[in-house]
Amino acid sequence: MTDTRPDLASYADLDLDRAQRRGYPEAVFCAGKTPEQVAGIATVVKDRPDVVTLFTRAAESHAAAVRNVLPDARHDPVAGLLAWPPDPPEPTGGRVVVVAAGTSDLPVAQEAALSAQYLGRRTELIVDVGVAGLHRILKHVDLLRSARAVVVVAGMDGALPGVVAGLIPAPVVAVPTSIGYGAAFEGLAALLTMLNACAPGVAVVNIDNGYGAGHLAAQIAAPA
Amino acid sequence: MTDTRPDLASYADLDLDRAQRRGYPEAVFCAGKTPEQVAGIATVVKDRPDVVTLFTRAAESHAAAVRNVLPDARHDPVAGLLAWPPDPPEPTGGRVVVVAAGTSDLPVAQEAALSAQYLGRRTELIVDVGVAGLHRILKHVDLLRSARAVVVVAGMDGALPGVVAGLIPAPVVAVPTSIGYGAAFEGLAALLTMLNACAPGVAVVNIDNGYGAGHLAAQIAAPA
Amino acid sequence: MTDTRPDLASYADLDLDRAQRRGYPEAVFCAGKTPEQVAGIATVVKDRPDVVTLFTRAAESHAAAVRNVLPDARHDPVAGLLAWPPDPPEPTGGRVVVVAAGTSDLPVAQEAALSAQYLGRRTELIVDVGVAGLHRILKHVDLLRSARAVVVVAGMDGALPGVVAGLIPAPVVAVPTSIGYGAAFEGLAALLTMLNACAPGVAVVNIDNGYGAGHLAAQIAAPA
Amino acid sequence: MTDTRPDLASYADLDLDRAQRRGYPEAVFCAGKTPEQVAGIATVVKDRPDVVTLFTRAAESHAAAVRNVLPDARHDPVAGLLAWPPDPPEPTGGRVVVVAAGTSDLPVAQEAALSAQYLGRRTELIVDVGVAGLHRILKHVDLLRSARAVVVVAGMDGALPGVVAGLIPAPVVAVPTSIGYGAAFEGLAALLTMLNACAPGVAVVNIDNGYGAGHLAAQIAAPA
Amino acid sequence: MTDTRPDLASYADLDLDRAQRRGYPEAVFCAGKTPEQVAGIATVVKDRPDVVTLFTRAAESHAAAVRNVLPDARHDPVAGLLAWPPDPPEPTGGRVVVVAAGTSDLPVAQEAALSAQYLGRRTELIVDVGVAGLHRILKHVDLLRSARAVVVVAGMDGALPGVVAGLIPAPVVAVPTSIGYGAAFEGLAALLTMLNACAPGVAVVNIDNGYGAGHLAAQIAAPA
Amino acid sequence: MTDTRPDLASYADLDLDRAQRRGYPEAVFCAGKTPEQVAGIATVVKDRPDVVTLFTRAAESHAAAVRNVLPDARHDPVAGLLAWPPDPPEPTGGRVVVVAAGTSDLPVAQEAALSAQYLGRRTELIVDVGVAGLHRILKHVDLLRSARAVVVVAGMDGALPGVVAGLIPAPVVAVPTSIGYGAAFEGLAALLTMLNACAPGVAVVNIDNGYGAGHLAAQIAAPA
Amino acid sequence: MTDTRPDLASYADLDLDRAQRRGYPEAVFCAGKTPEQVAGIATVVKDRPDVVTLFTRAAESHAAAVRNVLPDARHDPVAGLLAWPPDPPEPTGGRVVVVAAGTSDLPVAQEAALSAQYLGRRTELIVDVGVAGLHRILKHVDLLRSARAVVVVAGMDGALPGVVAGLIPAPVVAVPTSIGYGAAFEGLAALLTMLNACAPGVAVVNIDNGYGAGHLAAQIAAPA
Amino acid sequence: MTDTRPDLASYADLDLDRAQRRGYPEAVFCAGKTPEQVAGIATVVKDRPDVVTLFTRAAESHAAAVRNVLPDARHDPVAGLLAWPPDPPEPTGGRVVVVAAGTSDLPVAQEAALSAQYLGRRTELIVDVGVAGLHRILKHVDLLRSARAVVVVAGMDGALPGVVAGLIPAPVVAVPTSIGYGAAFEGLAALLTMLNACAPGVAVVNIDNGYGAGHLAAQIAAPA
Repeated sequence: MTDTRPDLASYADLDLDRAQRRGYPEAVFCAGKTPEQVAGIATVVKDRPDVVTLFTRAAESHAAAVRNVLPDARHDPVAGLLAWPPDPPEPTGGRVVVVAAGTSDLPVAQEAALSAQYLGRRTELIVDVGVAGLHRILKHVDLLRSARAVVVVAGMDGALPGVVAGLIPAPVVAVPTSIGYGAAFEGLAALLTMLNACAPGVAVVNIDNGYGAGHLAAQIAAPA
Repeated sequence: MTDTRPDLASYADLDLDRAQRRGYPEAVFCAGKTPEQVAGIATVVKDRPDVVTLFTRAAESHAAAVRNVLPDARHDPVAGLLAWPPDPPEPTGGRVVVVAAGTSDLPVAQEAALSAQYLGRRTELIVDVGVAGLHRILKHVDLLRSARAVVVVAGMDGALPGVVAGLIPAPVVAVPTSIGYGAAFEGLAALLTMLNACAPGVAVVNIDNGYGAGHLAAQIAAPA
Repeated sequence: MTDTRPDLASYADLDLDRAQRRGYPEAVFCAGKTPEQVAGIATVVKDRPDVVTLFTRAAESHAAAVRNVLPDARHDPVAGLLAWPPDPPEPTGGRVVVVAAGTSDLPVAQEAALSAQYLGRRTELIVDVGVAGLHRILKHVDLLRSARAVVVVAGMDGALPGVVAGLIPAPVVAVPTSIGYGAAFEGLAALLTMLNACAPGVAVVNIDNGYGAGHLAAQIAAPA
Repeated sequence: MTDTRPDLASYADLDLDRAQRRGYPEAVFCAGKTPEQVAGIATVVKDRPDVVTLFTRAAESHAAAVRNVLPDARHDPVAGLLAWPPDPPEPTGGRVVVVAAGTSDLPVAQEAALSAQYLGRRTELIVDVGVAGLHRILKHVDLLRSARAVVVVAGMDGALPGVVAGLIPAPVVAVPTSIGYGAAFEGLAALLTMLNACAPGVAVVNIDNGYGAGHLAAQIAAPA
Repeated sequence: MTDTRPDLASYADLDLDRAQRRGYPEAVFCAGKTPEQVAGIATVVKDRPDVVTLFTRAAESHAAAVRNVLPDARHDPVAGLLAWPPDPPEPTGGRVVVVAAGTSDLPVAQEAALSAQYLGRRTELIVDVGVAGLHRILKHVDLLRSARAVVVVAGMDGALPGVVAGLIPAPVVAVPTSIGYGAAFEGLAALLTMLNACAPGVAVVNIDNGYGAGHLAAQIAAPA
Repeated sequence: MTDTRPDLASYADLDLDRAQRRGYPEAVFCAGKTPEQVAGIATVVKDRPDVVTLFTRAAESHAAAVRNVLPDARHDPVAGLLAWPPDPPEPTGGRVVVVAAGTSDLPVAQEAALSAQYLGRRTELIVDVGVAGLHRILKHVDLLRSARAVVVVAGMDGALPGVVAGLIPAPVVAVPTSIGYGAAFEGLAALLTMLNACAPGVAVVNIDNGYGAGHLAAQIAAPA
Repeated sequence: MTDTRPDLASYADLDLDRAQRRGYPEAVFCAGKTPEQVAGIATVVKDRPDVVTLFTRAAESHAAAVRNVLPDARHDPVAGLLAWPPDPPEPTGGRVVVVAAGTSDLPVAQEAALSAQYLGRRTELIVDVGVAGLHRILKHVDLLRSARAVVVVAGMDGALPGVVAGLIPAPVVAVPTSIGYGAAFEGLAALLTMLNACAPGVAVVNIDNGYGAGHLAAQIAAPA
Repeated sequence: MTDTRPDLASYADLDLDRAQRRGYPEAVFCAGKTPEQVAGIATVVKDRPDVVTLFTRAAESHAAAVRNVLPDARHDPVAGLLAWPPDPPEPTGGRVVVVAAGTSDLPVAQEAALSAQYLGRRTELIVDVGVAGLHRILKHVDLLRSARAVVVVAGMDGALPGVVAGLIPAPVVAVPTSIGYGAAFEGLAALLTMLNACAPGVAVVNIDNGYGAGHLAAQIAAPA
């Protein structure tokens, strides 16, 4: 591994003090990086077990490269996420509830839930409660009202975050997904719906950005 | 008025037999026509009291021009619509319910309701029942389920038609409106939401097209 | 199969009572689901032969997974659709005619026709009648006029639905397809054409949404 | 007027030899120019009565400025066009037929017809023959087939050019107009329809570009 | 005023219990409503001094209508906002800091600050600290780090929220504005920048949506 | 082959009389059709050697299917085009010159040239004359001026058609290509450039539509 | 005026040291500011005659407000620009040539030329040399080749910058303008053309951004 | 090789005198060309060792074809670039600094740096200094201020070029990259950000256009 470290400066400048500065560590976005580059970063990370590092958007090749360096890293292939050290911190602050409108939204929702968990919050996951059958979301209202932050993940029409926001006091972090076809335009339709939600209290993040949603929810639900 | 009629062929070729061919008369779309042109058309229409003629998107100047020729025409300034002869036909077929998500959607909803009425259907109007407070639409479920066709008019996030479609057996005619700002993009956001509605049974028409929605609902609810 | 069912709640919450509530059963949209998830849903469905279940957008792997659980399910590979129980219900209500503008629009048209059929309507299919040769559609006018709902499927310029709507009394359900290239923009051109159709009576659904079109047509043509 | 000419070089460099080079003179596009600038150009033009000059997109203030310098210029306020010298040349080449789909498309169609006429062709104008009532265009087929070039002007769905192209041997110059609302997107819908016309033989020009269409038709119908 | 109240049901269905359900009262969005409609709503509001009502996007005519009914309502013409009762509640929870990137973003920033204040938070406002001169924002870092929620309002390139998010632990509510020209596309450029912010912790709301941003910040900074 | 013909009606309705009606035969657009469907069409075509049939956008599998039925069909793999009967007709009318701005535009240009040739015109091809080095196009001005129609094929900035149109009397058929990257947006940039060409006389067709350009040029250059 | 200064901090934080830091002073963008705000800024500027201040996008009301405080400021109403102190600095560095494709592009070109001049460069202006008549630009090649930076301002097809770049060694600063109509989409077409210019050496700035272009050209042509 | 050269005229017209005319040689854009075509061009290039030729966007197959003809060509696979002759010229003029915002932007940055180097400039490369951690870019300010031109390559929010421009006197050549996902829209978000940069002095090139950025920087930093 020593031969990997000399090269690091030629492709990355890690922000390891971000946890000090912001209270939340930097994550490693794997898409667009070679497995070799990701492995090089993992080698540096290995010296800092005091900081939780998340590797997001990790393909199988990235995951293998990370686990070669950090064999005990936790890997969730549905979410495309690795965490090291593998055990999440003791939860503090309020509860984060993550809601996936449809089955296909599950990978993004899982990424959000794990991100919030590793950044220090208690999380719960609710699945397949789209607006085509309102009774499905209404039966979870008590759990939703108990949260300090709710993440709602939805593709296609993206209508669920606005409906949830109208039911609860906490902010809703809305994540449009690229699930859908035709005039869904790879998540654009859901994104616009969420930006125009009739109910105030909807915080929109980028399409498919489960990590960002989990991070934001963790900040909102942080201890005062 | 005689001097107006010779010119008609230079700007219009009325489709007065459409009522025979399709069962529904042609409407006169006033926007983009001069008041003089609209008056010329009204003069021809005057000879055909057997056909209901609607003048849509009529500004005050158009309305004045029509009423100069057809003094007893009914004028609804909120909807920007005139009808002649002024009395709607006896209703046949099923019931049409028109729903306006917000107060600002009322002009388009009114245009839809009047169009369906003049094309021969019984119509009811429900106002200000957006998804930010679900209880407002849920209290009308019985009326909605009694309809043969429901028109739902909504701007901003355009989420209401999908929610209504999930509650009832009849088709929902969804009309996006240009109400909203910013990323509503003059109705584009609502339009995309409706095209991607999770619940099947949503028939989308053009932004602000109240007339088209009323016409379509009248066809759907026509007697078998 | 028993080991699949315990997991179902982690990725899906079936709306099996939709047939009661709306009169039409929920369909299973396979794209974006794993074959394992689809198989898990099929296992639940197996206990409800009283409800017709459609599996739409089914790739070969989805189809194999469904047929593993429901061996007698009907599979139409052109439409990417499976139906179980395999026999459609006795038709009621009015006739649905499905029109495909070009040969390449056939898969979407077939999906529409089968959907309408399994939701209880008599259906007919007409193929390759684009507006470049008007005589091709004009020779079918009598059949078109006999329908209670007409589905028109078209890519490229998407002009056919407006032309058909101008010829008949029934509503036209217009389905833009992603057939075309360049400025067709994956169906956007056809979608906009249909939304702006000069003839009223055009109900637009999402690009390539054959299932939604068939569902809507079945609702329109339902018995009074 | 002499004080205007010294300034001309500071804002314009007329291409008066274009008639020699291309066979067609340069036109003066007034929109975006001040009346003073247009007047200055008119003063130069005055010395070249051998060249036909068209002033296009002329508002009332531009028209007054031109007529102050060239009192006998012909002014068509519907088309927003002035021509000087006022008499069109003797027609040569084939016939140009200009078709306006709707009454509101008339100004653009008129601009096209006058442009073709002043560039040397015989022209005919047909109005209000949109595809919602096919019989209206079909009754003009003989005239359309006699043309060497047909200009079709249409807003909203822009479907007419493709239908006309499928009926005749000559090229169709298709002009989308900004007539319409909502998803017409100021002529974008019509533009895309025309670019995707199923029938080959459709030559598309810019939205509302009546002058360009007339020019192109004049070139196509030029004597061999 | 009594003659106004009977009509209310024909255009609005107030959600006066939203304060109970969500903890925050409904606001009245004036744009798209007539002054008469706004006055009618104000008349109902008058009976509920226990709830803070905000009238947003109020033009002068709306403001006059409100003040006719509620003479002591507070009116901030820069923000286009009225509040009644006029005194904001005692602040609870954490601090909200509102940052305006440029002078022209001030109206939206002011709307956000007042909204957060009337929903119960302490607020501070910082102006003209765009990224073209980083020293301007860096000098406020201590204040920014003391906030429980920061609202950043920016047009043109919209780069400021991401820069601020990288400096602080609290969430940033990012509000794109329509300030700019050309490729700013009425706020679209700023919106996309914010959705793609490299730093996590950016919650995006609609273009120019100062009210929504203040509401969201108030929720984030609510007492635990 | 006999077993293929019975099915034809289920997927195609050939317009074999188009040559009579329009003077130009229908082409078979292969993309989106299965090789089996294309073979079925070829079988029908085989009975009509009096009509030239072009198979466009033919992948290798389509080409093999056609040649299985029509072994002597001419196949140009660069253009993705097959023609049968293989010999083009004797040329009539004026000359068509096809210009490819860059090497990568050659397939589309070749498709245009062959189409014009098989529809009866003399054609010439000029390659790699983009506007970055004006001398390259200027050296061909005499040939360009001798044409009755010029087809200009260009991707990236799409500037060449406007430059050529300014140099010659004949119409320019402009074909944007999807060559380029980034803000070329798959040909959109070139398309917009051509629609906005400063020089009149530019007839735009769809992106990559070599066949349509060749057809249009053949019509323009047809004998009077 | 003294009463204006206390308020300045509430809406602006001037970056008066930018001239030290970057070598170029900050400009005051007036659009979106009230005349009172602009006057307040002018009052501060008045104390710093060592720095050249430009007020850009100044409407008449802004200009009056500036001249009330700085009576000798130079005002160019065509460019919407004021400069104070009124005399530009002695020119240093290389020559900047500004080219306006059409007469209507003159305001933006003038803004660019004045900006470069007040930032310290010698400037020349060439007008109305669009690509529809190449001879017009070719006659200026010697002047263009003498420049250290050339600004090319063009609307509609935006083709000129690429053509100029292919002729000269210096960089071309390309400014798309919103001149045009229809598919020019307020300058988008020209912008895309310039970003895709075949000739390298084209530096693109925002639509109508004459000031930015002049600033960039001044930097490029700065003394070494 | 002789059999390759006769064909060259059928697909390319090399601009070998561009180095004379503009001072910079033509590059060969490989994407869209076949390896055979690229080899043919390399064969011609081989006779002109006095001119530096760059082959850009070269896939492995292009690289092999070039090296078959020019075995000593330098190949940088990260940048997808080959140069021949392999040794860059002695640097003249000012320094060019290339900055990559993130690791994934490295290929484009490398292409820019090598292009500037082969066109005659000294270059330096800085990597992974995005705005989420400002301290990373601020530590390089001295190097940045020493440059005559700075190239900043950034995807996602594209905010870095504006921040850098505000810190230095030299122009910034901004290169948006297609790095990102969702609302990054393949680089569109970064492109718009850069066009709207608050700091003047930002010269934008096409998405992923490293070669163009290096070329432009080389021109800006050319010896006076």
